Amino acid sequence: MPGPVYHPVATGIASDTVTQHAGPASIVLWGGWFCPFTQRTWAALEAKGIPYQYREVNPYLKEKDFIDISPHGLTPGLQVDGRPLHDSTVINEFLEEAGSALGAHPAVPSLWPNSGDGPYEKARARLWIDHVNKAAVPAFIRLLQAASPPSQAAALAAWTTALDHITAHCQGPFFFGNEISLVDLAIAPWAVRDFILCEKRGFRRDQVSGWTAWAEALERHPAVQRTTSNRDKYLEFNQTFMRNEDHSAVAKAARAGEQII
Amino acid sequence: MPGPVYHPVATGIASDTVTQHAGPASIVLWGGWFCPFTQRTWAALEAKGIPYQYREVNPYLKEKDFIDISPHGLTPGLQVDGRPLHDSTVINEFLEEAGSALGAHPAVPSLWPNSGDGPYEKARARLWIDHVNKAAVPAFIRLLQAASPPSQAAALAAWTTALDHITAHCQGPFFFGNEISLVDLAIAPWAVRDFILCEKRGFRRDQVSGWTAWAEALERHPAVQRTTSNRDKYLEFNQTFMRNEDHSAVAKAARAGEQII
Repeated sequence: MPGPVYHPVATGIASDTVTQHAGPASIVLWGGWFCPFTQRTWAALEAKGIPYQYREVNPYLKEKDFIDISPHGLTPGLQVDGRPLHDSTVINEFLEEAGSALGAHPAVPSLWPNSGDGPYEKARARLWIDHVNKAAVPAFIRLLQAASPPSQAAALAAWTTALDHITAHCQGPFFFGNEISLVDLAIAPWAVRDFILCEKRGFRRDQVSGWTAWAEALERHPAVQRTTSNRDKYLEFNQTFMRNEDHSAVAKAARAGEQII
Repeated sequence: MPGPVYHPVATGIASDTVTQHAGPASIVLWGGWFCPFTQRTWAALEAKGIPYQYREVNPYLKEKDFIDISPHGLTPGLQVDGRPLHDSTVINEFLEEAGSALGAHPAVPSLWPNSGDGPYEKARARLWIDHVNKAAVPAFIRLLQAASPPSQAAALAAWTTALDHITAHCQGPFFFGNEISLVDLAIAPWAVRDFILCEKRGFRRDQVSGWTAWAEALERHPAVQRTTSNRDKYLEFNQTFMRNEDHSAVAKAARAGEQII
């Protein structure tokens, strides 16, 4: 299966960002413009001001040069002076930790919470990222895939419950206060994409107390804006999920009720 | 459902360790002696030489004082000066990072790989821990639960494949060489318990090249030994999985083919 046919490149502001990051660099992001996991890492690179090359990849093709970087064939992949990494959660922690050695802008604050007891607060942040990965993201995907009204109602409830659980702890405007964090970057791509749920699945942001303000803050952040394509293209891409025809590992796992990430 | 009835306390060497850690301490481990995820964290505390109190908990009872620490009611939970943490992967990174502030023995080397480029090597270690969590552990549990010969054969193949993938990268005697690491601690509880697969599911350690040597090194490590109970008690506890009667969240998720951790 070659996978779905889709618009091959980023659009809108993200298209300008791709153009600005076409030249060679020690860090190479192998991404899909449509892929929310890619956007997590892409936005982290932008937020940190780390020099990088953006390379668009079609993960459905499972081409060998990409599998060598990301063994499950999932975007994003990262090359660090030629050495491979994958998994947006792992990559984003790496980018934060290695930041200055990778040329991160020195004025950019840490993406970990800055207040209080460092290791304990980092551990709490990791638990929130786990919650996004294990509860919110699977619920979002299942809601996109849900075809019948009863399955849509169940998936919508799971999505709003997962979102409510984390949003209740958002200090505002970002999760830990004034600065964007790894927790914000973990959920931001779904703030960018939840308009699809609003248009097609009867979701309203005000169903989740505090989500409107948080989601708007995420959408407005320059690192998120610079990695966001046009809405019509996101909608077009996600039609494949809504028709339940997507052949990616993520979609298959979500349909089977299996672990997604 | 009150959950299965099982032997309530640690036995063997682990019983002595419990006795030595009965007194109050800033770090409190809420664990189940039978629980492999507990053993990951328990062994990390022992390996680092961090002072702690061990508190046996029956996670099936979902008692409020435990849910306040570990919201899904899963062992291990950790209290850090009264503040809650859960999830063995997150806790173990916390223990390593906060180590000296928690009173870790200064002579104990890092549980991260010590060689080479710190952040990159840490990211690679995290990917291996993810592999244990997402591939090896679910395969182990499904193999325990598999009742029919065909399902046992399929689960055994999944277990040996997952194990082979990581064992092939073990430098020996431990994953990154001479010192035990967070990757070793992530898999060690299943080295302690794979005798059950050998006795009941036809697994042989020599089916996976290199596993015998690695598993024996893990079993011999003092931190693992000090947190290990008697084999007959592990076998007795795991009978519930083999009869597919266990009511824990882990067992339910494994039966449903869902994300386990």
